[in-house]
Amino acid sequence: MRALVAGGAGFIGSHLIDALIAEGHDVVCVDNYFIGTRENVKHLAGNSHFKMYEQDLADFGVVNKIFKAEQVDYVFHLAANSDIQASAGNPAIEYHNTYSTTFSLLEAMRLNGVKKLFFASTSAVYGEQMGREVSEEAVALKPISYYGGCKLGSEAIISSYAYMNDMSVLVFRFPNVIGPRLTHGVIFDFVNRLREDPSHLRILGDGRQSKPYLYALDLIDAIMRFKDVKKGVTLYNVGVETQSSVTRIAEIVCEKMGLSGIPFEYTGGRGGWKGDVPVFAYNLDKIHAAGWTASMTSDEAVEKTVEMVL
Amino acid sequence: MRALVAGGAGFIGSHLIDALIAEGHDVVCVDNYFIGTRENVKHLAGNSHFKMYEQDLADFGVVNKIFKAEQVDYVFHLAANSDIQASAGNPAIEYHNTYSTTFSLLEAMRLNGVKKLFFASTSAVYGEQMGREVSEEAVALKPISYYGGCKLGSEAIISSYAYMNDMSVLVFRFPNVIGPRLTHGVIFDFVNRLREDPSHLRILGDGRQSKPYLYALDLIDAIMRFKDVKKGVTLYNVGVETQSSVTRIAEIVCEKMGLSGIPFEYTGGRGGWKGDVPVFAYNLDKIHAAGWTASMTSDEAVEKTVEMVL
Repeated sequence: MRALVAGGAGFIGSHLIDALIAEGHDVVCVDNYFIGTRENVKHLAGNSHFKMYEQDLADFGVVNKIFKAEQVDYVFHLAANSDIQASAGNPAIEYHNTYSTTFSLLEAMRLNGVKKLFFASTSAVYGEQMGREVSEEAVALKPISYYGGCKLGSEAIISSYAYMNDMSVLVFRFPNVIGPRLTHGVIFDFVNRLREDPSHLRILGDGRQSKPYLYALDLIDAIMRFKDVKKGVTLYNVGVETQSSVTRIAEIVCEKMGLSGIPFEYTGGRGGWKGDVPVFAYNLDKIHAAGWTASMTSDEAVEKTVEMVL
Repeated sequence: MRALVAGGAGFIGSHLIDALIAEGHDVVCVDNYFIGTRENVKHLAGNSHFKMYEQDLADFGVVNKIFKAEQVDYVFHLAANSDIQASAGNPAIEYHNTYSTTFSLLEAMRLNGVKKLFFASTSAVYGEQMGREVSEEAVALKPISYYGGCKLGSEAIISSYAYMNDMSVLVFRFPNVIGPRLTHGVIFDFVNRLREDPSHLRILGDGRQSKPYLYALDLIDAIMRFKDVKKGVTLYNVGVETQSSVTRIAEIVCEKMGLSGIPFEYTGGRGGWKGDVPVFAYNLDKIHAAGWTASMTSDEAVEKTVEMVL
């Protein structure tokens, strides 16, 4: 097939492009390098199965021109502002990069007869709800971050477009994803702080914030495995059953850096910043029943990622 | 208080303004007359408690200037494209008038410290789901119209803004609303067709499409009664337990027009148009338990509205 990967120069998008090309597909990548990087796609330069557009996906006119020129038959939409902290002070970033990109892509799909879509959604649509009851169908969605709000808004308009235009859509809600090409987040912060000053490590909150970290290549495996879906919207929570606490991540970073006895200084409180969900877990029964489980635990994903960052 | 009514020249918005002024409040109305009309607010001209801005609410710069000038303390957001059929062929109408208006208003509220919001949502967020299980908390939301998709997207970003900025928000999901100042919909269509040609009446679908019709002044009563809410988002389904079938509406129109024996010609099929939900009912336990029920049944609301249209 001929696939358009929106946000393809990003951390997850670039791994997906590698997997698509490895499976024999042609890929058109569109990215404005807002969070994505040239570094992530530089190994693809000269590959005849790869084409790059540096464009803003919120601009419908531009997107529609690309669709007319490229005649793709599958859109993988991973374009978004993935830095929740950055948009907390400027929600317009989410309106532009997370919501409006979705609308542009859907409208271009409608007008150009493209029927297949993968959408990268997030556990942030659930807000502070957690536990066994947080399955795909059973809870009201109450996002607390602008990122979660715009991802849920995207899911909502995707639901409408899918129905009105007979599209086949796969939506994954995933948690923190880490692995090769990661560019920000708690692992980076810890490594950078310890490199600057290894006498102590400042940790936001009480260190007990605990989340599942999914290894990027496990996520890519799931996207590739489930990408052929029936008409309508097929929705899965995708993640790992295990979690890593912030303190455990700090310990792993210190171990891998060969540092011991570093005092951890906690700023205290329940979470890192407003809009952050301090403890999170959700129900993965549906995707497990469909035959997929992650190959790595959350701690294993953290360990492997720290090794790559160093 | 000083209230801003977004979409205040609309059918429902203009009734809300009347109720707010009657209760002693000052009202700033913002409307672009896309669906709202000058006729709906002309009785307010010269009223010292009323101020009108003819502006596009999707334009954040304009909205922010109005907020700075007017120093309101409550926003009633009823601006939207309410004509689902019109946007079926042009979803950009919903992106602009239903979703982007919400974002502009929330952003202006955030930057100007406005903490109170009423949002007019819709039963269309539920899509084709129906029955007792369709309560506020218990079902996954699967809109099928672009209107429903953009309303649900609005609810999603409202959830985020409410949390991040300590807002107090009342959200009502309501069904078809009819009554004085209504300007489109099935009642109008039937009256117009019969005035043009009373020899027969063409009816889209099989006539068994059946929905609850809520009388506008019952809805206004509920908004006024519940408008002071606690911090966070308070959500209610608002409606009537009863429903009116399309055939029953046709019968009422004929009766009120003094026509008898008119042959009804059904186009057949399940519904009126794609994105329409042919049979709809939802759970109203929550608002009933809070002490509110509609004063009119669905058929009574239809009868009263037909009398006003004629």
